[in-house]
Amino acid sequence: MRHAVILAGGWGERLWPMSTRARPKQLLALAGEESLIRATLARVAPLVDGESTLVMTGERLAGRVAEELPDVPRERVIGEPVGRNTAPAIALAARLLVRRDPEAVMVVLPADHVIADGAAFRDVLSLAFEAALAEGALVTLGIRPGRPETEYGYIKAGSPARTAGVLAVERFVEKPDRETAARYLADGTYLWNSGIFIWRADRFLEEVGRLLPAVARALVGVEAGLSSASFEGEMARYYEAVPSISVDYGIMEKSDDVVVVPCDVGWDDVGAWSALERVWTVDADGNAVRGESVVVDSTGCVVYSEAGVTAVVGLRDIVVARTSEGTLVVPKERARDVRKIVEELKRRGTIG
Amino acid sequence: MRHAVILAGGWGERLWPMSTRARPKQLLALAGEESLIRATLARVAPLVDGESTLVMTGERLAGRVAEELPDVPRERVIGEPVGRNTAPAIALAARLLVRRDPEAVMVVLPADHVIADGAAFRDVLSLAFEAALAEGALVTLGIRPGRPETEYGYIKAGSPARTAGVLAVERFVEKPDRETAARYLADGTYLWNSGIFIWRADRFLEEVGRLLPAVARALVGVEAGLSSASFEGEMARYYEAVPSISVDYGIMEKSDDVVVVPCDVGWDDVGAWSALERVWTVDADGNAVRGESVVVDSTGCVVYSEAGVTAVVGLRDIVVARTSEGTLVVPKERARDVRKIVEELKRRGTIG
Repeated sequence: MRHAVILAGGWGERLWPMSTRARPKQLLALAGEESLIRATLARVAPLVDGESTLVMTGERLAGRVAEELPDVPRERVIGEPVGRNTAPAIALAARLLVRRDPEAVMVVLPADHVIADGAAFRDVLSLAFEAALAEGALVTLGIRPGRPETEYGYIKAGSPARTAGVLAVERFVEKPDRETAARYLADGTYLWNSGIFIWRADRFLEEVGRLLPAVARALVGVEAGLSSASFEGEMARYYEAVPSISVDYGIMEKSDDVVVVPCDVGWDDVGAWSALERVWTVDADGNAVRGESVVVDSTGCVVYSEAGVTAVVGLRDIVVARTSEGTLVVPKERARDVRKIVEELKRRGTIG
Repeated sequence: MRHAVILAGGWGERLWPMSTRARPKQLLALAGEESLIRATLARVAPLVDGESTLVMTGERLAGRVAEELPDVPRERVIGEPVGRNTAPAIALAARLLVRRDPEAVMVVLPADHVIADGAAFRDVLSLAFEAALAEGALVTLGIRPGRPETEYGYIKAGSPARTAGVLAVERFVEKPDRETAARYLADGTYLWNSGIFIWRADRFLEEVGRLLPAVARALVGVEAGLSSASFEGEMARYYEAVPSISVDYGIMEKSDDVVVVPCDVGWDDVGAWSALERVWTVDADGNAVRGESVVVDSTGCVVYSEAGVTAVVGLRDIVVARTSEGTLVVPKERARDVRKIVEELKRRGTIG
């Protein structure tokens, strides 16, 4: 049976102060009227068994996430006691799914991405489910690049796999510099790594056993089902035992059985403030504005205002964001550096 | 006897959102630890009769201003029912002073300027009081310019007057462009118009009679003393009757009996955000920062933060100000354009 595993662990640091630990990106309605996580679930609902969807999030957020997803049974929103990146979370989810459904095939979905074309996405996902079953491989969705993006990782696609529309993966490549990104765009065989994966749960656990033995060993201790009284304790021990490692680095880049489905589905990870001009309405001066603001003689700006008015004059290509927690001002081209701000605020104890 | 008249009518619009109508510039501690208006009074206290100081402010602010100046008797803080610029306010003050003290000589002081060197200022003021009595002229303080400022009006000084240290005024000149300001600076005979005036009250009222007859006519109706029950009503009729006109335009530029005392007293009108780097501590990167903030890879910025943290990355010569009311972002060189913001916010009814 088809299942969905939604990853909702982070809080979108690079969108501070709109995103905060208490009000993380996946709970915001960044595009459209519903939160990103609710849109994520709604987008795949026609294809997967909602009752057996799993949501992996932080312990402190689990209640809020569960409220946001009323169609997901409460015990299936799993609050991780500590964040250990994506590989341990996905491995635990795979184990829980395969325990009830040995034939389980699962799609792993980040909770905080935007996909503009839901119908096209479901077509691609159907193909990916087929390929996961037919090829027995780890399937990833590769987005055909629309610009020389330097903030995404890329997948170099290779020769066609057996299933039509599916390609072998030659290799995963790190975030490129501007020049390399332009070359990738022109080349045509490079795809953006979407972080969306499809595989049989048992096949993925085989790869975990081979490539992440420490995770596999810890997984043995998770015997109880979700509704069992001993699950919490077992999960706590699991998260204590596993290393912190991403599924990209720990599995995808090392496995020799990865294929990719190239697609055009209007995907955007909305990873930084500079991304918002792609999902928000942009006015005639190229400004993407939300909230009460006054924008004078300014072009190419992203202006977000809450809890008061935001007024800008004479700016070009600058992000200005105001919430009750704080104000951020940064040139769009340095939007990634919001991380530095967040690190400093954490160090000071200003934010959690 | 020497008296002081403190003008506290405006609210420092160009310093929005730090200044607001409810919390105007003159009540802020922009330099040092006390409010600008309290510092203004303290600065002249050794030279004037505190009991007969008059403070002209708006009706809505009078209570707050009186609290801020406990040494000024409450009835001497006059709440104007409507703002009519400086000439009517000063004329009313002169009339009230001369009524009790026909020999009154008065200094007119804006409540919201910074004067770094109080002792030097008092020396200059003593000289100006002497000159006002000896010359019978309208005396103004002219600040020796330290930079080619384009935001101030200038005074072209002429030949020496009878009193040593005092010069005739050739003319008042409007805010110059950059090139003209540089020429004024090099010339040496141009001084900044400080808006600080010293004269005999009766002499000033003569000039009002000659140059602003509508004001003089309205003044006839103000018969009652400050503590009289009929004063409020008389004042209301006065403000209804007078035109809105500045003392600079209405009197100083037209009178042929104006002299100037050139001085160096560390004067600054702190008229706009770009002025604050002159009165606030500036760090090694040239940033003037107040409040909780994170400033990364930025130079020459003015950052003010209240009610939350303000974080900036990669900015150059930008003003960023945050308060509970709003956030402002503007290049320093366009700081004067904060007026446009304030106009728009008034138009919308966002601010009063």
